[in-house]
Amino acid sequence: MRSPIGIFDSGLGGLSVAREVIRKLPQERIIYFADTAHVPYGERPLEEIKGFALDITRFLIERGAKAVVMACNMSSAVALDEARTRWPDVPILGVVEPGAKVAVRTCDGRPIGVLATTGTVKSEAYARAVGRFDDNIVVVQQACPKFVPLVEAGLADSEEAEAVSRDYVAPLIQAGCGTIILGCTHYPFLRRAIESATGPGISIVDPAEETVLELAKVLNEKGIASDAFEGSHLFYASGETSGFAELGSRFLGEPIERVISLQASVVCVRTHGS
Amino acid sequence: MRSPIGIFDSGLGGLSVAREVIRKLPQERIIYFADTAHVPYGERPLEEIKGFALDITRFLIERGAKAVVMACNMSSAVALDEARTRWPDVPILGVVEPGAKVAVRTCDGRPIGVLATTGTVKSEAYARAVGRFDDNIVVVQQACPKFVPLVEAGLADSEEAEAVSRDYVAPLIQAGCGTIILGCTHYPFLRRAIESATGPGISIVDPAEETVLELAKVLNEKGIASDAFEGSHLFYASGETSGFAELGSRFLGEPIERVISLQASVVCVRTHGS
Repeated sequence: MRSPIGIFDSGLGGLSVAREVIRKLPQERIIYFADTAHVPYGERPLEEIKGFALDITRFLIERGAKAVVMACNMSSAVALDEARTRWPDVPILGVVEPGAKVAVRTCDGRPIGVLATTGTVKSEAYARAVGRFDDNIVVVQQACPKFVPLVEAGLADSEEAEAVSRDYVAPLIQAGCGTIILGCTHYPFLRRAIESATGPGISIVDPAEETVLELAKVLNEKGIASDAFEGSHLFYASGETSGFAELGSRFLGEPIERVISLQASVVCVRTHGS
Repeated sequence: MRSPIGIFDSGLGGLSVAREVIRKLPQERIIYFADTAHVPYGERPLEEIKGFALDITRFLIERGAKAVVMACNMSSAVALDEARTRWPDVPILGVVEPGAKVAVRTCDGRPIGVLATTGTVKSEAYARAVGRFDDNIVVVQQACPKFVPLVEAGLADSEEAEAVSRDYVAPLIQAGCGTIILGCTHYPFLRRAIESATGPGISIVDPAEETVLELAKVLNEKGIASDAFEGSHLFYASGETSGFAELGSRFLGEPIERVISLQASVVCVRTHGS
């Protein structure tokens, strides 16, 4: 089934999930939606974020998505259940559940650390998700407000990134965490800096990787995996796209033949009685 | 089957076909593509126009189009056969064939007049299409280079439009035409001016109307008509979009709830061995 996989995020961070899909499922085509008109989600009311997530999920399904990945920790936390209820026939995955699941499997009873944005920390999404798998495990959360600006400034591999990482990781090491979840789609780009801060002996969990493994499983179970890649990936942004092409191709890490820029308008016609 | 109908044109004129789809098939959803990066097609080599048409057809089919309408006389003339060969499972319609067909049916043996752009006149598309249905019928073509600028300047209902129409229609009346085909998707907007020039007793054929009737037939025969409208129409433009929202809503003539502007990038990843 050559319909695409829908993936969305508040911004470009979710491209780390797209990159994993391209690596692990190269026969699948992607439609990606970056909600750059509303990024960042961090300070917005949860109901608003939920509304955005449901609108975007609908948009992707209308464009033919056979499965949808909420590559946004906030969206996954607040909108996943409702989206699954609304579109029961379309597999919808978040990044929080798969991340929490593998962390629980690898933590060996020790505390699990979570590096995340302030919003995701406040939502306690990872703490709740870990609790659903095993409620004896302690979850230690650390908000990392400096991480996203570093990645977006292209400083993921800088000394500054290493110094900031050491500050954020220290409380998790002190709490005895043996496993650390990268609880924001931008953080995989900081993996080297974070690993230099943790040293060896601490497992880093990238929810993107686990989410894509889960996605592969679901596609196979449902018999809707694609048999061959055909055509082109399509990336939408609701607002600003500066840096999209450059960051996009860096995030994707794939040989790109060409990028065609489009303008698009969604016209919502008033429907009667539906 | 709630997949959308794909419609494309070099510019906005094809919205007259979209308008007909919305009027006659209100349960169908549309994805429209305006190739505004390359408009006008008129002076371009036919091979180039064919390439654009095949690229856009592929784009629309990849975005889930269950049927494609080439709402562009030039594209219909040069790319229809090749597109049907490439995508045998997707109904692909042009505007020239349906327009010629109904003109032949209504002309009662008298000459058929064609008002069209210089490019379409040169391509002789309507003359050939009429010939395929009945090669005894005389086709009189009239190039109308002033019509598109009038429509795009919002002067479709002006005295100037009436004067220009009289000039263009005069040779067709003189040749004894009883039927006149509006051979460009912009011209239906000039219908009033053209009718005031022809006077009564001459039938005006709008290929858009005939094309949509043909589309309805094909959707029913194939069992792929939609049972209910759901969601939103989506309009893409490869380049300039100024006037798109304004002209678009005027052309559509439908109560529009809201228009969401998007940026989109098509990323063509190099594929190996396909």
